[in-house]
Amino acid sequence: MATTMKPSPFAPKSLPKLPVIDGVQFGTAEANVRYKGRTDLMLALMVPGTVAAGVTTTSKTCSAPVLWCREQFKHGRARALVVNSGNANAFTGKKGVEAVDVTVAQTAKTLGCEAGEIYVASTGVIGEPMEGSRIADAMPALAKSVKGEAWEAAARAIMTTDTYPKLALAKVEIGGVEVTIGGFCKGAGMIAPDMATTLGFVFTDAAIAQPVLQRLVSAIAGRTFNCITVDSDTSTSDTLIVFATGTSTKRKAPEIRDMSDPNCGAFAGALEGVIKDLALQVVKDGEGLTKFVTVQVYGAENDRAAHRIAMSIANSPILKTAIAGEDPNWGRVVMAVGKSGEAADRDKLAIWFGPHLVAVDGERAPGYVEKTVAGYMKAGEIVIRCDVGIGGGVATVWTCDLTHDYVSINADYRS
Amino acid sequence: MATTMKPSPFAPKSLPKLPVIDGVQFGTAEANVRYKGRTDLMLALMVPGTVAAGVTTTSKTCSAPVLWCREQFKHGRARALVVNSGNANAFTGKKGVEAVDVTVAQTAKTLGCEAGEIYVASTGVIGEPMEGSRIADAMPALAKSVKGEAWEAAARAIMTTDTYPKLALAKVEIGGVEVTIGGFCKGAGMIAPDMATTLGFVFTDAAIAQPVLQRLVSAIAGRTFNCITVDSDTSTSDTLIVFATGTSTKRKAPEIRDMSDPNCGAFAGALEGVIKDLALQVVKDGEGLTKFVTVQVYGAENDRAAHRIAMSIANSPILKTAIAGEDPNWGRVVMAVGKSGEAADRDKLAIWFGPHLVAVDGERAPGYVEKTVAGYMKAGEIVIRCDVGIGGGVATVWTCDLTHDYVSINADYRS
Repeated sequence: MATTMKPSPFAPKSLPKLPVIDGVQFGTAEANVRYKGRTDLMLALMVPGTVAAGVTTTSKTCSAPVLWCREQFKHGRARALVVNSGNANAFTGKKGVEAVDVTVAQTAKTLGCEAGEIYVASTGVIGEPMEGSRIADAMPALAKSVKGEAWEAAARAIMTTDTYPKLALAKVEIGGVEVTIGGFCKGAGMIAPDMATTLGFVFTDAAIAQPVLQRLVSAIAGRTFNCITVDSDTSTSDTLIVFATGTSTKRKAPEIRDMSDPNCGAFAGALEGVIKDLALQVVKDGEGLTKFVTVQVYGAENDRAAHRIAMSIANSPILKTAIAGEDPNWGRVVMAVGKSGEAADRDKLAIWFGPHLVAVDGERAPGYVEKTVAGYMKAGEIVIRCDVGIGGGVATVWTCDLTHDYVSINADYRS
Repeated sequence: MATTMKPSPFAPKSLPKLPVIDGVQFGTAEANVRYKGRTDLMLALMVPGTVAAGVTTTSKTCSAPVLWCREQFKHGRARALVVNSGNANAFTGKKGVEAVDVTVAQTAKTLGCEAGEIYVASTGVIGEPMEGSRIADAMPALAKSVKGEAWEAAARAIMTTDTYPKLALAKVEIGGVEVTIGGFCKGAGMIAPDMATTLGFVFTDAAIAQPVLQRLVSAIAGRTFNCITVDSDTSTSDTLIVFATGTSTKRKAPEIRDMSDPNCGAFAGALEGVIKDLALQVVKDGEGLTKFVTVQVYGAENDRAAHRIAMSIANSPILKTAIAGEDPNWGRVVMAVGKSGEAADRDKLAIWFGPHLVAVDGERAPGYVEKTVAGYMKAGEIVIRCDVGIGGGVATVWTCDLTHDYVSINADYRS
């Protein structure tokens, strides 16, 4: 459990200080859903007029909260987000649906809004029946306790095996008016998001039409959260939601109404910065990691092929353990390219570990010096580059090594 | 390295004693290809008239020996098999091809046969240039040392991280005459064979037309070696070859000429028994394992979907570590079904751990008692069954748990 774990070597020395975003407030509570003696419930309240857009896991066994959120994205009106940790409320049958219903009904009653304006997410053990009443009971007091500055407390309340809270911030000018984008996320294991993420929540005072926001979020997720992997395992609960309050219009910020709006590019760039920052923080807190690894693939048949090859490299247990052992075992990169099933020209394949060319033209590079590359492997951040020699497809994905601590953490997660 | 490893808990108490097969002899040598102080070269000699059929890895970065063998399967005449351990001769460019050429040329010269009648396989480190001369230099003496009974020595010479030699035997009557099928294989890590295996070699005195043998081997590989996984990583060198000397015709055994031959079924059944035995021994020597796990999937859309779901379960790092921790964390089976991408009806899904129904109708089974199932998880052999509630597709695959020792073995394989 989280309490006994060593902090990630990539835990930030200090957490970013996020400012209050007009129209967004956070509260946390100890609802005892599963954990004892720590906060496990987070409420984010948003002003009327807020829109929400999001993406969720493609898992065929997704959780009840995921199914609920998918329905609400269709209209995208939002007043609140309720997230608990400790229980994923996944594979919990009718009781799971009831837990969502109880949660949103109580929250809507407390706030005086519609149930459909409440978004929910749950993270933790799969298959354990969840008592929605614990959340509902805590709601009235929780709703009174919210504060605009409580970002860090909110990020901490949704942690499971995370060793640090993950926060990110960007500011961008829209029509000469500064708007703020802030967010947080959680995740450390069961990380190979597919069209979404573990839990990630982003808030902004930007004014943006919901369909435009949805298009941006879907595209950005494809380049960020869908490009990270800790252990190749895809959660039943992955959810990324961006909430936009529109409150910056009070300060004369213009609304972004469509993709061709000149302000859309600037906003999209800032939003991608925040979401990518959060995604990389998930990898940097990968269960048991000692190394943060960037995998770049060039020369694939197309970008999709490049992504598959990069994921095949990033998910190879036998390569990830070699990286943990600081062994520049580039033959295992060759193996991973080969098993991906994508086209690769063995005799044009080239591999770099950081600045060091280790393989070229289908064999070990002429200038390869094992000792030099072994020295490079001692770094905390490793870059593996691979040119597969076929076409113009490129991809970058991020992962971590596979260590004894990953085994320890997951051998007794529930005990 | 092999020398420092604990034996698998599934290592056999005693090795099967294989009889001499008429027309087949084995020799081994210390050729110092990479290892010192142990045998690392194996020669199997077969009488003229022997046919060979095989399957090899589908890796796009397959080794030079794999490419050589594929060419020879087209005619299927065989006189010898040469296998070295320590160096996979994969991703070794022109030097790799030269090493094969030197090996087969010297062997053919020594035996007085054609180069195309020599089959080669190499296993060990990928990307290290290989000196074919070490094998060629050892060949003349090696060819003189062969003996019909030297099965165990042959199986030992091809080991890498294996903790025990893997041998299997069957006898079957063909037209009232007993024929023998014996084989051995190696493999412990980088095991997720695709259309083939790690290295597996089977010998028989049966008389069988090469095209018939090839069809049998391809089909059997699909049900055996292609259904095992240790770590989801597919080797560049996977090779399974069956050699049939036809020497049983001297004892009046009839030749099997086509698939509809009444003797074909009996032979195929015995051959599958030997190959399956070898495949399961690979899993039972999976690097660092403490548990042998059978995964059975029912109710999938079709057999192919069932196989994918079973492999998704068998390859999930987060589930495999839970099994190592003896934690009946069946929620991770739900996760693995969900991420497979294959159709599954969450509300009809049922999961058993051994005899214990743990989940049914989309939630935890009513009679589930954690303590009882946790007790079951202490066994060495675990069976996970899963009905996905869609159709009639079934599949069985075999795997092992993911332990600290897997990480240790692969963090310093080359050092």
